[in-house]
Amino acid sequence: MRIRALPSRISRAPLTALLLLCISLAGTAARAQEDPLPSWNDGAAKQAILTFIKATTDQANPAYVKPDDRIATFDQDGTLWTEHPLYAQAMFALARVGQLAPQHPEWKTKQPFQAVLTGDKQALSKFTESDWMQIVAATHAGMSTADFQQLVQGWLATAKAPRFNRPYTDLVYQPMLEVMQYFRANGYRTYIVTGGGQEFVRVYSEQVYGVPPEQVVGSSIVTKYDNSTGKPVLMREPKVFFIDDGPGKAVGINLFIGKHPYAAFGNSGGDAAMLEWTQAGGGKHLMMLVHHDDGVREYAYGPAGGLPATQVGTFSDALMTEAQKNGWIVISMKNDWKRIFPFDEGK
Amino acid sequence: MRIRALPSRISRAPLTALLLLCISLAGTAARAQEDPLPSWNDGAAKQAILTFIKATTDQANPAYVKPDDRIATFDQDGTLWTEHPLYAQAMFALARVGQLAPQHPEWKTKQPFQAVLTGDKQALSKFTESDWMQIVAATHAGMSTADFQQLVQGWLATAKAPRFNRPYTDLVYQPMLEVMQYFRANGYRTYIVTGGGQEFVRVYSEQVYGVPPEQVVGSSIVTKYDNSTGKPVLMREPKVFFIDDGPGKAVGINLFIGKHPYAAFGNSGGDAAMLEWTQAGGGKHLMMLVHHDDGVREYAYGPAGGLPATQVGTFSDALMTEAQKNGWIVISMKNDWKRIFPFDEGK
Repeated sequence: MRIRALPSRISRAPLTALLLLCISLAGTAARAQEDPLPSWNDGAAKQAILTFIKATTDQANPAYVKPDDRIATFDQDGTLWTEHPLYAQAMFALARVGQLAPQHPEWKTKQPFQAVLTGDKQALSKFTESDWMQIVAATHAGMSTADFQQLVQGWLATAKAPRFNRPYTDLVYQPMLEVMQYFRANGYRTYIVTGGGQEFVRVYSEQVYGVPPEQVVGSSIVTKYDNSTGKPVLMREPKVFFIDDGPGKAVGINLFIGKHPYAAFGNSGGDAAMLEWTQAGGGKHLMMLVHHDDGVREYAYGPAGGLPATQVGTFSDALMTEAQKNGWIVISMKNDWKRIFPFDEGK
Repeated sequence: MRIRALPSRISRAPLTALLLLCISLAGTAARAQEDPLPSWNDGAAKQAILTFIKATTDQANPAYVKPDDRIATFDQDGTLWTEHPLYAQAMFALARVGQLAPQHPEWKTKQPFQAVLTGDKQALSKFTESDWMQIVAATHAGMSTADFQQLVQGWLATAKAPRFNRPYTDLVYQPMLEVMQYFRANGYRTYIVTGGGQEFVRVYSEQVYGVPPEQVVGSSIVTKYDNSTGKPVLMREPKVFFIDDGPGKAVGINLFIGKHPYAAFGNSGGDAAMLEWTQAGGGKHLMMLVHHDDGVREYAYGPAGGLPATQVGTFSDALMTEAQKNGWIVISMKNDWKRIFPFDEGK
């Protein structure tokens, strides 16, 4: 970008420039020989990804996609990181209820807060959407966007996920990080399209996934501009603005991106509309669903059974039927992935 | 992107590569000598833009901005193209009322439609927000997003703006096109942040301004996902979803971009919050307001007087006071711009 610096470089060192060019290209060529998806076992799922990228980036292929239109969307919870036994953001909300409880003595006898404070797991597993909205309103609103980001950062730095006893941001799926990186290396922009909170995910999306804030589409509450002190802030209000889940994912993609994606990755019925909308765009597309069938290395739920799916995205039989009908590819965590997390070395 | 093709290129033609590199760099150097803002007269406004870009792209300068954070936002109506005597989108809505009238005989005696159909300019100039919303609901909703885009395309291809008797998309400001191009050439992403309809502006933003759909932030109505026929569509509902104007511009920037811009361009009170929010981001910023003071080549309104401002963005005395207090730079169309439109050759 600093074009003023270029002329002197040219006059000074044309041969150096050539050398650097050759080293750079040779490095690129060497990398091209490497497997871009080393944590994937050979199989239909891995092959589908490789074939899709090859076809859509080859100008001689009828499926070629112009760089400006290369959009890939990824659900987060259960697709990019662990969602069991509860979404990380729900864990954040519950922890925050505990922190705020001293200022709310009435919560001791008021549901849904009482259940949270007494650790009543059975009541918690039966929370309705309205229960969760009360908790979100109490824990996610009443502060500026900047203050909320700080709260999330602080929580992420100290909270540990159950079973693995690690920060939540460690529980990302290594194979999916490789997919995102592979797409980006081929000119695709990778968007997170999550039912979770947009402002929550933006706090760590760049660091954890390499996805900048403007490429995070998510659910949000109303924010209100306040410049009464001469120092403008956006205050978070206890009111839903947009639910980016189910049919909302197609709405959100159109609202925030304005283009059909060419590839979409999900893991639950909440992602079906995103995959349908992707497929409706014309041309060659890639729709994939992560199936949680590995109770040993992660969790098994959905058709793989084992765990109740009340608090997590559900991979229902209906979704499996739709996947088969539409040619969506189901990724078996157990069979397709050599390793699950960056911290396990292929265990 | 087609990395597989590179090794053969390297082995085949290292000298060709060097030659091409040198030609390319020499071309860049030559272009760097040219004035990036040829339609601007020398003066404080032009100098402010040049100084800002130089400072924020120079790593040795304390005001340096990392490429990922280089965001510039532009209002559209009155900032990038002519908004007088009515916004183009309002003209589209009025034309559409005329087209739809045969299906709505009741409009002959029902306001605000009656005023539109009889061409009652005085009534029209007094339309309230509620009147406009009724017109938007009748003309912008009840169809799929794809059908709406086609309607807008068709209208733009045939409609002519008053006085200039040219397509609306001809009435863009050449000096502002140069600013957008100059910002992009220096690694900035240029966003349109408009009170107008997001879906409306996206139809032509790439072609007219070089701004892709995902970088258009605007007002929107509710859309509803419908896959009942097996061919998914988003239906436009007669209900406001988001008003990206006034305080809503700060909300919209946070919602869609999630970062403070480093530069913002507006022309009315509806842009004040956008400029305030930009300035609140810390570091060196550039806030500019286009002042319509050229009744000969375009229109004169606001502090420059002349025309009523009921239907157009208002550059009020209060805005001028805020600009002076905050160090925002006011662009005089009359004095700062050598030419207004691409089609007038510096007249």
